[in-house]
Amino acid sequence: MNERILEHDNQVVRRFFALDTQTYREGALNLKTKELLGLVASLVLRCDDCISYHIAQCREAGVNRDEFFEAFSVGLVVGGSIVIPHLRRAVDFLDQLETMPA
Amino acid sequence: MNERILEHDNQVVRRFFALDTQTYREGALNLKTKELLGLVASLVLRCDDCISYHIAQCREAGVNRDEFFEAFSVGLVVGGSIVIPHLRRAVDFLDQLETMPA
Amino acid sequence: MNERILEHDNQVVRRFFALDTQTYREGALNLKTKELLGLVASLVLRCDDCISYHIAQCREAGVNRDEFFEAFSVGLVVGGSIVIPHLRRAVDFLDQLETMPA
Amino acid sequence: MNERILEHDNQVVRRFFALDTQTYREGALNLKTKELLGLVASLVLRCDDCISYHIAQCREAGVNRDEFFEAFSVGLVVGGSIVIPHLRRAVDFLDQLETMPA
Amino acid sequence: MNERILEHDNQVVRRFFALDTQTYREGALNLKTKELLGLVASLVLRCDDCISYHIAQCREAGVNRDEFFEAFSVGLVVGGSIVIPHLRRAVDFLDQLETMPA
Amino acid sequence: MNERILEHDNQVVRRFFALDTQTYREGALNLKTKELLGLVASLVLRCDDCISYHIAQCREAGVNRDEFFEAFSVGLVVGGSIVIPHLRRAVDFLDQLETMPA
Repeated sequence: MNERILEHDNQVVRRFFALDTQTYREGALNLKTKELLGLVASLVLRCDDCISYHIAQCREAGVNRDEFFEAFSVGLVVGGSIVIPHLRRAVDFLDQLETMPA
Repeated sequence: MNERILEHDNQVVRRFFALDTQTYREGALNLKTKELLGLVASLVLRCDDCISYHIAQCREAGVNRDEFFEAFSVGLVVGGSIVIPHLRRAVDFLDQLETMPA
Repeated sequence: MNERILEHDNQVVRRFFALDTQTYREGALNLKTKELLGLVASLVLRCDDCISYHIAQCREAGVNRDEFFEAFSVGLVVGGSIVIPHLRRAVDFLDQLETMPA
Repeated sequence: MNERILEHDNQVVRRFFALDTQTYREGALNLKTKELLGLVASLVLRCDDCISYHIAQCREAGVNRDEFFEAFSVGLVVGGSIVIPHLRRAVDFLDQLETMPA
Repeated sequence: MNERILEHDNQVVRRFFALDTQTYREGALNLKTKELLGLVASLVLRCDDCISYHIAQCREAGVNRDEFFEAFSVGLVVGGSIVIPHLRRAVDFLDQLETMPA
Repeated sequence: MNERILEHDNQVVRRFFALDTQTYREGALNLKTKELLGLVASLVLRCDDCISYHIAQCREAGVNRDEFFEAFSVGLVVGGSIVIPHLRRAVDFLDQLETMPA
């Protein structure tokens, strides 16, 4: 789907997508920390697709289950009970990832 | 001001405040990472007081200027240009902290 | 699903869930009023799962159809037309509840 | 200020303001409940001016301090710690109202 | 579904729906501009149903693909990467509309 | 203040600021329409600084008072009564601009 968006010749949209990728590159903060930042930002803004994406990225970056739950706890306390349905789907998605063969 | 809130005998409010403190304690994730999570969550939800609070906490936890700007960049890209006025005030607050004697 | 979240040993998450339950207990405000507050908060924050949950709780607490629509009207006016798709699903859910045998 | 907005001949804006007033009129739900709904909606959407307005209206409708704190607790738990700075200002405003002669 | 909402005798809800319709009528700003405003507002508030509705209205008002992408780019930059999943569905919906016979 | 942000060597932040400027350039949509889109997006996201900025830009692009109020009406109806305090400040700012010598 991203391809269909990017094939349209709109430079602002294309540059935004490039910038989005660049944002999570290893720098002063390591990849794992940056992906955790993206995850918690997605949780408090309550975007399921974004949450799943960052969970997958975090997992590749080596985030373990205890660390995931601590990140979830920050998102839950900052964002409130309105985050709970998204947290449910987040844990469900994480459980699915963990049962898949590496 | 927190005192005036907590002196009222409402157990839910009191417990929430206690839970909020507990959330940022060192655990599977270290203090610095947790405070950075709180900072980026506050940025994308655009709460100036929360941003200032977490900048001060991050600074005590040893976050340096490069790391701050990388955290800011995640908040800016996830949250969009609507974050910019808050980012201005965040950088202004950070500048003030850095000119204060330790 | 809540069980799977709570079986993980994260005290902040567990305490938040306990606090969430405690919040809606009868107190200075009665149960019905508190559930209506939860419903309107969910409407303006536009969380379908939360809306359905509080509609069911309100109904058990004795909220009738006229009262539901007045609560909906507050959510709609405070939150704006962006609430409309959620209001549609809310009314649909309420209609389903009302056709179920008690 | 409302006068300056309403003196401009825009029918949608004028009708919205009239509808906003109508929303909180006594109906199937009483005035007190409706103002509490407006207060909690304003808390979770984090609008200080709206919070102060509904606190004043609630007080006129007879909401007491215990009831205020229970309404605050719902707003705090649903909306999360990001609500705290607004809660501080809400309690401060309530304290001011309570020290004013009736 | 709107019918089921409107058949209930709640004047605030009915008036809000009438006002919502009136908002997008040709006036000092033409219909196309107003629908584009509704579209970008829906994008940054991230409501898929509202986005689809305004895309269909914009298309009837003569908005072409380049114009759509420029409106999307404003929504993306103001609202940030959290808008991306909604932008994907928006482009998907637009593609479907464009393949349908007029 | 932007200068102080941009003098720090963070490429993501700098590129975001450049992209933000590029977004409102005349293209398939004219400057006036794009600034109106930015204004309504800022209204529904309730950012006073962003609203003032886009009001000033809209004014330079030739938006007249009737057009401003129609844009405001879209923001008000989409975003709800929670937008009202921001609308007050918006009209106040517009009044100030209009009394300044060109």
